[in-house]
This record gives sequence, C-alpha cells and structure tokens, in this order.
Amino acid sequence: MEKLICTNCSETYDLETETGRCTVCGEPLETEPITNGVIADEFPMEKGIFNRYASFFPFLDLDLALSLGEGSTPLVHIREGTNGVKGSKIYIKNEGMNPTWSFKDRGTLTGLLHAKAMGYNSVGTVSTGNMAASVAAYAARAGLHATILVKEEMADEKIGPIGIYGPRLIKVKGNYRKLYTESIRLGRENGIYFINSDAPYRVEGYKTSSFEIFQQLGMKVPDYVIVPTSAGGNFRGIEKGFRELYLSGITDRMPIFIASQARGCNPIVRAFDSGLEEVQQLEEFGTIAHAIENPYPLSGNQVLRLIRKNGGMAVDVSEDEIINHQKILANAGIFVQPASATSLAAANRLMEEGKIESDAEVVCIATASGLKFTESLKYHTIKVENCDIDDLESRLR
Amino acid sequence: MEKLICTNCSETYDLETETGRCTVCGEPLETEPITNGVIADEFPMEKGIFNRYASFFPFLDLDLALSLGEGSTPLVHIREGTNGVKGSKIYIKNEGMNPTWSFKDRGTLTGLLHAKAMGYNSVGTVSTGNMAASVAAYAARAGLHATILVKEEMADEKIGPIGIYGPRLIKVKGNYRKLYTESIRLGRENGIYFINSDAPYRVEGYKTSSFEIFQQLGMKVPDYVIVPTSAGGNFRGIEKGFRELYLSGITDRMPIFIASQARGCNPIVRAFDSGLEEVQQLEEFGTIAHAIENPYPLSGNQVLRLIRKNGGMAVDVSEDEIINHQKILANAGIFVQPASATSLAAANRLMEEGKIESDAEVVCIATASGLKFTESLKYHTIKVENCDIDDLESRLR
Repeated sequence: MEKLICTNCSETYDLETETGRCTVCGEPLETEPITNGVIADEFPMEKGIFNRYASFFPFLDLDLALSLGEGSTPLVHIREGTNGVKGSKIYIKNEGMNPTWSFKDRGTLTGLLHAKAMGYNSVGTVSTGNMAASVAAYAARAGLHATILVKEEMADEKIGPIGIYGPRLIKVKGNYRKLYTESIRLGRENGIYFINSDAPYRVEGYKTSSFEIFQQLGMKVPDYVIVPTSAGGNFRGIEKGFRELYLSGITDRMPIFIASQARGCNPIVRAFDSGLEEVQQLEEFGTIAHAIENPYPLSGNQVLRLIRKNGGMAVDVSEDEIINHQKILANAGIFVQPASATSLAAANRLMEEGKIESDAEVVCIATASGLKFTESLKYHTIKVENCDIDDLESRLR
Repeated sequence: MEKLICTNCSETYDLETETGRCTVCGEPLETEPITNGVIADEFPMEKGIFNRYASFFPFLDLDLALSLGEGSTPLVHIREGTNGVKGSKIYIKNEGMNPTWSFKDRGTLTGLLHAKAMGYNSVGTVSTGNMAASVAAYAARAGLHATILVKEEMADEKIGPIGIYGPRLIKVKGNYRKLYTESIRLGRENGIYFINSDAPYRVEGYKTSSFEIFQQLGMKVPDYVIVPTSAGGNFRGIEKGFRELYLSGITDRMPIFIASQARGCNPIVRAFDSGLEEVQQLEEFGTIAHAIENPYPLSGNQVLRLIRKNGGMAVDVSEDEIINHQKILANAGIFVQPASATSLAAANRLMEEGKIESDAEVVCIATASGLKFTESLKYHTIKVENCDIDDLESRLR
C-alpha cells in the first residue's frame, strides 16, 4: 500500500493527507518512490504521456479525459559556439510548449486528478502567474470551480490570460508565504483543494519531464540537470523522476542536480553557499525573473538536501546574465520568459569556471514561454525599419 | 523523379522552381503527391515527426538539427453540452503548442530545408505575425539570416516576440498582395529565399497535421476538418496530407474540408457562395481575426477547387461569434487567438443549421496561441477581486 513519506524525517502518512507537510518536522511530504516502473521504448503518441508512464502513477486514477495534452515537450540540442553557448552537449527542455505554456501543466493534471479522487469539485492555487493560468485552464477543462489567488502587484499582461479561462481570480495583498499556508487551511474548510507549488501530487506530475529526457537522450541519464527554482516543486519532481528510474533498475546512475536562481532573489543559493541546512527568508528581493521570485521557498530545505546528496549545486545569476541568456536562447530559436533563462546562464557560468566539464551532457529546463511576460522585451534592443513598398528594392539590395 | 505540378492545369515543373506558381495559368504549384507513404503505428517520440513521416518527404534532406520540435500537438476532445459546444465528437487540434506557438512552424522547417538544399543562407517571409515569428526563430536556429516583412499597421505587442529572434524586421507600407509577389522577385535577385504563406515547400510541412490527426483518432480519418483560412497554405497542406494517406492506400476515404473565415474578411466564402471559380479581391475588410485577415488569398482558387471536390464548404462567422468561441474554447481549457476560434464557431453553426450531423467526427484546427494577441482580451469580461490576506477567510466562505 502506497503512502506519503516526509522528505526529511521519513515519518509516513496516509495518501489522502492534504496539507502535504509533515506534522512532526514541518518538511514537505512525497509519495513513496516507485521501484518497479517501466518505460516503453516505443509508444503510440496519441496515448499521451500519463498513459505512457502509467506504471509510475499507481496511486492515481488516470482519467485522461481531463488532459489537455501536457508534456511531450522537445529536448533541443544547442550547438556549441553559436550564440555564446559553451559546452558541446547542452540541451534545452522547452516547457513553453505545454497547453498553458509552462511546465506547471504536468503537475496541475496530477494534482487535479487527486482532488477529484478525493471528491472535490473546487480547486485553487496561489501563484505568481504560470500556475494560475494552468490551474484555471485545467479546472475549466474538468468542469471544476477554480479559485486563483495572485499577488497584488502582478503584471497586468498576466491577468487576462488567466482570467479568460473563467476562474474566480483574487489579487491578495499580504505576505506570499502566509498566503500559501492560509490557502490550504481555508481551502480545506471551504471545500477547495489547493494545488500549490510543492503539493505532493503536483510534484508527482513533474516526474514526467525526467522520463521524457531519459527517452529523448536515447534511454540515458544526462550528467547534469539544471532547474530554475522557486518553491522547489519542479526541482523535487524532476529529481524524483530520475530517482524512480534508478530505483526501478532502468538506469544505474543519477544526474547531478543544480538549482538556478536569480541573484535578486536567491534564498536557496545563500543557504547552500553558507552551508546551512535551512533556507532563510529574504526580506529584500527583486528580479526580472518574476516566475522564480520567491523569498521563502517552501521546499527549499528539501532542495538543499537533494542537491547535497550527490554533489549538486545552487547557483545564482545576475539580471544582466538573465537578459543576455534570454537573448542567447532566442538566437537559438527558443523564446523563454526571464526565469527560464537562469538555467542556461548557470550552465554557461559553471563551464566557464570549470565546475562543469565542457563535454558534459547538460539539460537546462526552460520553464515557460516568452509570450508569458513580454514586458521583459523592453530590456532588449529590437530594431524595426520602416519603408514604403516602392523602396523595398533598394533596401533589400 | 518527383516534380512540382500546377494545382489547376497540371503543368509540371522542376522541383527547384522557386516562384511556386504556374507560368501558364498563374495558379499555385504543389509537389507530386506521394502514393507510397507509410505510417508507423508506434514510434519513439524522441525521433520527431519528420522522421516519423519521412516517407512522405522523399524530396527533402530531413536535417533535423534544424528542428525545434514542431508538431506532435494534442487533439483534444471537447465534451458535448459543456461550454456551448454542439456535437458529440468535436476535436480541437491545438497548434498553439508549437515552438513559436502556431502551426506555421511545421511549414517553416520544410521551407527552410528546401532553401538550404538550394544553397541559400538567407530566408525571408511576408507575414501578419505568426509566420514572421516562425521564420525568424527557425532562421536563428539554423544560423541563417532572416528578412521579415510585416504590415505597417501590425499590433505593437507582436513586434517584440518576432524581433527577439534577431531578424531584419521591416514594416512595409503598401499593398499586401503586391508585397507577396514582390518579395519573391526581390528575394530571388538578392539571394533571399522567401518562404511565404503558400510556398510549395511550406505547404508540405502542414501535411504532418493530417498524419497526426489520423493517428490520434486511432488510424482513422475524421468526417470533417475545418481550417481557419487566410492565404490557403494550411488548408492545402492538410488536404494534401489526407490525400496522400488515401493515395498510399492507408485509408479508403477523405474527410470533407471546410474553410472558415471571418465575415469581416471573407473572400473565399464570397466566391464559394456566388459559385465563382476565382476569388475576388476585397477592397474593404476588417476583423479581430488578424491572422486570417487576407483580402486576396493567393491560394484561394485552389481552396475553392479542393472544397468542391467532395462536398466541402466555406463558412464565415461574425466578430461576435469569434469572440464567443474564443471564450468557449477557454472554458474548455484552450486559449486561442481570435482567428483560431473561427473553426469551432463554424462547426457549431453548421450543426445548428443541420449542415453537419451532430454525431459527425469533426476536427477543428486551432491555429495559434491566445498569448499571440492578448489585445483581443479586451472584448472579454474578466473579473478581478482585490482583498487583503486578513479578509480572505470571509471571501472564501
């Protein structure tokens, strides 16, 4: 019988436990790792990724009528030298090609399936943007009511693309971390299942990224995986995916995991650099990488534990590096939001510093589409010429 | 030996012919249809769609180092009754999940591969937006120079997401149709291969949508396919894909094809309704569906011919219907740009009028992401509440 296990003290809980946190030590819970998963080499694409990887989700009733076709995102090899990319085996996992254009969709589906299994007809989330759109869309798809709590200062351009799905959308003034825990309590009292950023059943969905990467590299584990890290949900899910491949005997090694953050909001990097076991809340912070602007990541301690397990790192990059790497990625044909550029920026710097070998196989997660936050384009020089059709001939000569 | 054939008078041309049009009758050319294609039922997803469907592209050197992971988009079943959708077997082919978030990417890759095979190191396009971003991205990926010609009046929000890829971007004042033909001539004279909207090798890429739909429906052809139609390139490609499945003996029937347009710019619908064989240029036009706002579609006559071949139709929908169906799709979890909503709007109306049976299997192509043109959100009521975290409890009760 599967159960939830504390990622820190190994206390076990019933699979239905809703808070997602250990009552003993306060750390996040995860479902018991799968040790008998199977990866089919060939699989009809029309079946969808959750059917493909069903053996890793025995605790969920995979009702794929609720799917919007999440996952199956490309792993794009970026050529060395071109576009300022160092390293010969750099791959971008382009999560901007999901149904709501971010990686969140993978975990929203699994979270929502669990909510439905527990009898909820109302779901919610607390989000800086990507998760808001994702939960609103999947709730709409499933015919469930959605309550979306966002930060008071959220960029205007993000509101419409969430609101169009028809959720109840509330801008909340107040501490974001408190909002996270309050939402779960209030949700439970009011029949709303909050699928927040590191909820155990959301984290489960992110495992599918790992399985895809493994297959896309030809049934092989990369040397490094770099994940832009906010609360730590995606980091945890991707690590767990590879861990379950390992525990299932499908691979005999694990990648080294690296968390990338913006220097303007880098609580995990600070704790890592200081050798601390617990992430400290930042009081002052600010970065263009809004999607990972999280001063007190709820799964931060678990990210630290996972990083230290096999020689991983936490790396922060400057605002300039973020903007530069957003451009470098666009020059390679991939337009990402600023937060997504932190992983490649970290890879480049670590190679420069000799902390990653230049021929290492490195997968950089690009978390969301650049269309999500076009305001960031103001930091780029975009030249537009104007001409009359009759002058075109002389222009093109 | 394969060749190009006029879609109207069957005159044949060398495969390298660049204009893409018949010198005898002026109509568009297409590559000789494949009659021995093969569809593999199971295929490793990491190989990409052009490897999967390689037998339908013998005339191209499929260098997939230039791929950005186009295609493999979901076919989403929309439940009857919910969200105002009529019909029990309505499917949305969500092309907004491509690398630059529109269907254009499929054809940009094939067009670019042909340009490279012919020795070009510079490509271009004339576009209202989606194709501009697509050609700019793929050129960047391939290390080719890109010249992107756009309309003078293009919405500002579309400029940045094209310019970020680093093309030469020119806003051109003048007649859009003239620009189309001028660009091809000037391109040839100046070493720029223009992959315009109905270029034969662009059209080829769109065939992959049909192959995917066929597989996603369980190796079966749908009853109807509805395609938002501008120049006609996507319509032609999708028809050709199904035609090649038919000619290859993989299926024994063809779907019925329907072109959807906005009433504000409906040259193909007008010609269809009037029983004309040739599309007439509109002098006055205007619609929120900018992506299909094309007053003189260059492949319009061929679309008419294809429609009439087996009882197809051309249908226009009002601005209200477009906005309503953009909302209906969002209520089903899919946020599209206005042009993409015309196909579902057409399906719903045709079912209402009894012109399509309510149990028919209908595939509606959704051409691009709603994030492409968020200005359209101003036509929707999006309610946002504001509250303090301390008041959240009373709000959620």
